[in-house]
Amino acid sequence: MYEKVIELLEQKKYHELKSMLADMNEADIASVLMELPQETLPLVYRILPKELAAEVFVNMESDAQEFLIKAFSDSELREVLDELYVDDAVDIIEEMPANVVKRILMHTDPVVRKSINEILKYPEDSAGSIMTIEYVDLKKYMTVDDAFTRIRRTGVDKETIYICYVTDDNRKLLGLVTVKDLLLSDKSKKMFEIMETNVISVTTLEDKEIVADKFQKYDLMAIPVVDQEERLVGIVTFDDAMDVLQDENTEDIEKMAAITPTDKPYLKMGIVETWKKRVPWLLLLMVSATFTGKIITSFEDALQAQIVLTSFIPMLMDTGGNCGGQSSVTIIRALSLGDVRFGDIFKVIWKEFRVALLCGVTLAIVNFGKLMLFDRVGVLVSLTVCLTMLFTIVFAKFVGATLPILAKKIGFDPAVMASPFITTIVDAISLIIYFKTAGLILGV
Amino acid sequence: MYEKVIELLEQKKYHELKSMLADMNEADIASVLMELPQETLPLVYRILPKELAAEVFVNMESDAQEFLIKAFSDSELREVLDELYVDDAVDIIEEMPANVVKRILMHTDPVVRKSINEILKYPEDSAGSIMTIEYVDLKKYMTVDDAFTRIRRTGVDKETIYICYVTDDNRKLLGLVTVKDLLLSDKSKKMFEIMETNVISVTTLEDKEIVADKFQKYDLMAIPVVDQEERLVGIVTFDDAMDVLQDENTEDIEKMAAITPTDKPYLKMGIVETWKKRVPWLLLLMVSATFTGKIITSFEDALQAQIVLTSFIPMLMDTGGNCGGQSSVTIIRALSLGDVRFGDIFKVIWKEFRVALLCGVTLAIVNFGKLMLFDRVGVLVSLTVCLTMLFTIVFAKFVGATLPILAKKIGFDPAVMASPFITTIVDAISLIIYFKTAGLILGV
Repeated sequence: MYEKVIELLEQKKYHELKSMLADMNEADIASVLMELPQETLPLVYRILPKELAAEVFVNMESDAQEFLIKAFSDSELREVLDELYVDDAVDIIEEMPANVVKRILMHTDPVVRKSINEILKYPEDSAGSIMTIEYVDLKKYMTVDDAFTRIRRTGVDKETIYICYVTDDNRKLLGLVTVKDLLLSDKSKKMFEIMETNVISVTTLEDKEIVADKFQKYDLMAIPVVDQEERLVGIVTFDDAMDVLQDENTEDIEKMAAITPTDKPYLKMGIVETWKKRVPWLLLLMVSATFTGKIITSFEDALQAQIVLTSFIPMLMDTGGNCGGQSSVTIIRALSLGDVRFGDIFKVIWKEFRVALLCGVTLAIVNFGKLMLFDRVGVLVSLTVCLTMLFTIVFAKFVGATLPILAKKIGFDPAVMASPFITTIVDAISLIIYFKTAGLILGV
Repeated sequence: MYEKVIELLEQKKYHELKSMLADMNEADIASVLMELPQETLPLVYRILPKELAAEVFVNMESDAQEFLIKAFSDSELREVLDELYVDDAVDIIEEMPANVVKRILMHTDPVVRKSINEILKYPEDSAGSIMTIEYVDLKKYMTVDDAFTRIRRTGVDKETIYICYVTDDNRKLLGLVTVKDLLLSDKSKKMFEIMETNVISVTTLEDKEIVADKFQKYDLMAIPVVDQEERLVGIVTFDDAMDVLQDENTEDIEKMAAITPTDKPYLKMGIVETWKKRVPWLLLLMVSATFTGKIITSFEDALQAQIVLTSFIPMLMDTGGNCGGQSSVTIIRALSLGDVRFGDIFKVIWKEFRVALLCGVTLAIVNFGKLMLFDRVGVLVSLTVCLTMLFTIVFAKFVGATLPILAKKIGFDPAVMASPFITTIVDAISLIIYFKTAGLILGV
């Protein structure tokens, strides 16, 4: 696709290029455009059919958008802005430097500008910050026919027309009507007769994660956003909810790997920025790990007496970390999906205890066989290593399963309690278990 | 909510209970019902208003569904089945034991039974296995008015009426028309005049992950599923795509923690089943970690000479693992979001190299200060530890960033190349670096 565009560009076959692009999907065109050499971007963009241009623009990444805005004449800019939904405009503005934002707002229709400024005021990650104000609102005494007339008149600019909201004169949300209800109802029915009054909604200040969770739980197509006085101020549609869901997943995954989350794509992040997201956690974990070193130092004599014990330290530490990591990640995910709650903590501990015994016994047996047959380190050393392994696994799975639940209970993000932290804790304890067991069995 | 239901049940205030439930959302009712003592479940379920009952049923988990089906009379079962969408029926059947499946199919309408059997034949995780066959299909010479008549006549049983598909006499997909298009068009227009012919679709055998990706990329409300001859056989709607997205994320997260993925909720998994998902990876990683032990053994003399070196092993190994884990998880996620491709491998390596230098220098400096001021281990030992740290970090980030990309290239799942595997590799190399550096600087 990309090669074809380049070819047509080089041969200046603009007409052919135009008709080729006109047949493509806007997201695909945006992908192709972003791969083009930047200086050809405005040229190709101007070739696009008018009605496609704004949709392609929305699908591009912010650096390409910024480049284009800077290349636009005032009237070109106004044309694009007129076609944007308010929530898309807000998304774009949030990524732009101040001077570009100023220019955008200057060329936006005053009514829309006011809405944009309203939305920009909501806290980052709130429902208000991701909503759009373009929804169809109906009144309770309208008939089905009136409703269709209103949808036909105003629907072209709305992000969805399929869910319409019934409000009173103070904009208070009374109910919702779907276009399916409208199509299947008698034309003279009034809205209050057919509307669903038991409406799932969110408030402007609620976290966008809650918005995504409600879409999941209730299979919604759109959710109304109301203010503190229960007045309808906007809606969030399913496509935006899906983006939120993906962002939240990325955030959780990054936290589990001890990285401060970011919503920038990997290749767009600067080196220093990437470093800043990673190094604080590394420092913290490094300092914590030095305690583990202290434990080794305090058992120096035992190690001097039985230097062979040193060689099993990495295996014991790694296995403990892996077991704890499995449990913590499983529980973190179960918490985030709502499969596990604080009240389940004893059920979880009991379950992990039994799984840990099974895993521990399996690993200990395999390891014992290996130590006796291949390493030939003697029964007592083998026993020391294998018992340590069993105890460490039970302990690791206990810590891995409980810390995320406790973290959530006290208002921390459970995702932070994943492998890196669990590993650091388990390492220290596994060494103590190791040297204590060695003391008992080997007398060192 | 739950307490209130229990209270009304105990007082046998069934009428009050009914009107309370009638005002609730089906997903909420399902949550409450699943928490009830199982023997009261059929009683409460029978109290539900007819039209709600089937919707509540769909929202319950499979064990509660199974219990209910067993309690149903034949006519009750038939009533519920009549209300189900085909894709929901398939989801339910997939979770039931053989005798229940037989009973369900026996009481299903023969036409629907045929469709269910068709869908059950598609491979697990394919687009065909998650589609529904209930869509609105139109013909190209129908007018807008004809289309509305058809939607009004058949729409009540369709999972979505908002996207209608135009097919020819052989069911070949020609285009799509949205209800928005229909509402905003002249009533006498024909479908071929207003339909969108450039339709994004999937084939029955494509992976459901691709379905979810297309919803994300193109902001779709539904996607048509076609067979090898491009005939329309079904559609997937956005709510199902959102579920697929969540499942895929859970799968990736589990793989990153060295667990074989499962789609069962945590508390529904048996102990032995959980053990089976975890222990093979633990065994594999344990055996790999013994190589790290071998490296320690081969440098036993150096350790005997400078026993203090032992105490830094955990910190060096953990830091290496954490650094590698950060890079691998970042790249795995970027690959899965499509932010990074194989062609970017050198860009990624160059970026990770510079980030690693920054992180390595930061950590080495902090550590050097700590070793000199607090641990007072002498300049040469401090230098050995800090240089090892720097080299290990650079190596760990290189391995962490490249292995997932290479895994994907050769058709492996990159998610497996996360912290546990990277840690095992980095551990071994960090020890070699450590002892070589010690040999050079300390002469041991």
